[in-house]
Amino acid sequence: MGRGEQTRDAILETALQVASRVGLGGLTIGTLSEELDLSKSGLFAHFGSKESLLLRTLEYAEERFIETVVNPALAAPRGEPRLRALFERTLRWPQLVPQPGGCIFMAAAVEFDDQPGPVRDLVSANRKRWREFVVGAVRRAIDAGHFRRDVDAEQLGFELDGILFAWQHASRLLGDPRADARAHEAFEALVARARVRPRS
Amino acid sequence: MGRGEQTRDAILETALQVASRVGLGGLTIGTLSEELDLSKSGLFAHFGSKESLLLRTLEYAEERFIETVVNPALAAPRGEPRLRALFERTLRWPQLVPQPGGCIFMAAAVEFDDQPGPVRDLVSANRKRWREFVVGAVRRAIDAGHFRRDVDAEQLGFELDGILFAWQHASRLLGDPRADARAHEAFEALVARARVRPRS
Repeated sequence: MGRGEQTRDAILETALQVASRVGLGGLTIGTLSEELDLSKSGLFAHFGSKESLLLRTLEYAEERFIETVVNPALAAPRGEPRLRALFERTLRWPQLVPQPGGCIFMAAAVEFDDQPGPVRDLVSANRKRWREFVVGAVRRAIDAGHFRRDVDAEQLGFELDGILFAWQHASRLLGDPRADARAHEAFEALVARARVRPRS
Repeated sequence: MGRGEQTRDAILETALQVASRVGLGGLTIGTLSEELDLSKSGLFAHFGSKESLLLRTLEYAEERFIETVVNPALAAPRGEPRLRALFERTLRWPQLVPQPGGCIFMAAAVEFDDQPGPVRDLVSANRKRWREFVVGAVRRAIDAGHFRRDVDAEQLGFELDGILFAWQHASRLLGDPRADARAHEAFEALVARARVRPRS
């Protein structure tokens, strides 16, 4: 990794933390320059515009997500173990790559769902790739004989997202000390519904 | 209803629509005065500050939620039918009281979970009341013999919130035409898990 890339990554890591705390809308070249103690003009030279800063920050977040969540999950055995590894690592993602205000993608999904433009397009594309990845993992669990052939993989992807949103909501806004336990219980129930039933 | 209250309600209804579209953070006395073609000074006289405008808008939204979602659900028979009515009306809530950007409470829950202050306190209190109401409805379904005695009502409340978040996400950001059907399927699975099993 060259020095330019190291600088870029250090800047984007801070940008990600700021965006997680104040929302993507609150991430500006001004707030970032204060946080980093770098000149605004230097950051403008790097990013060109606020929109471009947001887009680069989201791209950086997706790179780190693939590296810290997706690739380790792919190292788990195909099928239910891989889906479980994916779920477990996703719960740890705001710690694995520091996001003090919680997962940037989930926050951006709500913040930008009604603001047409390149940022919304990128968030939407990211969330669709995530959904496809989950759905693919469910299909592999069907192929591996862990889940029933009639399991609706898209439905399972929908409900898994629900568990993640409810977990973020319960742990962050409601301050529920059992948020983690509840997310796990919901995941177990979801998987149990999909599993091949033992013959009686 | 006096004339003052009618004016207040008309202003707050517009404020709710603006907040739903651009987020609570984007709702200011300035944007609202443009939308309503009223003077800023007149609105300042009504609300005093931006923060007070946000608080009044959320209180107004909760009044309307009780009137259009909670009270009609309470008219349904106690137990599973009432929980179902609550779920169905909650899905229709952004149409029942126009919120073009989706449910204000769910958006505010994500937007303010990391911004300490009176707005976050009000959003958090509102979401806790909602959760308690759902949990209470589940407990009545246990008392009525519809749900098993060992059902964890808090867990069911957590998972119901997840379904609502996933539905908002799928319908608004992902543009999934099956979002409604998926929310219903998830709800049926949740209720089926809680139901008293027929004796075999």
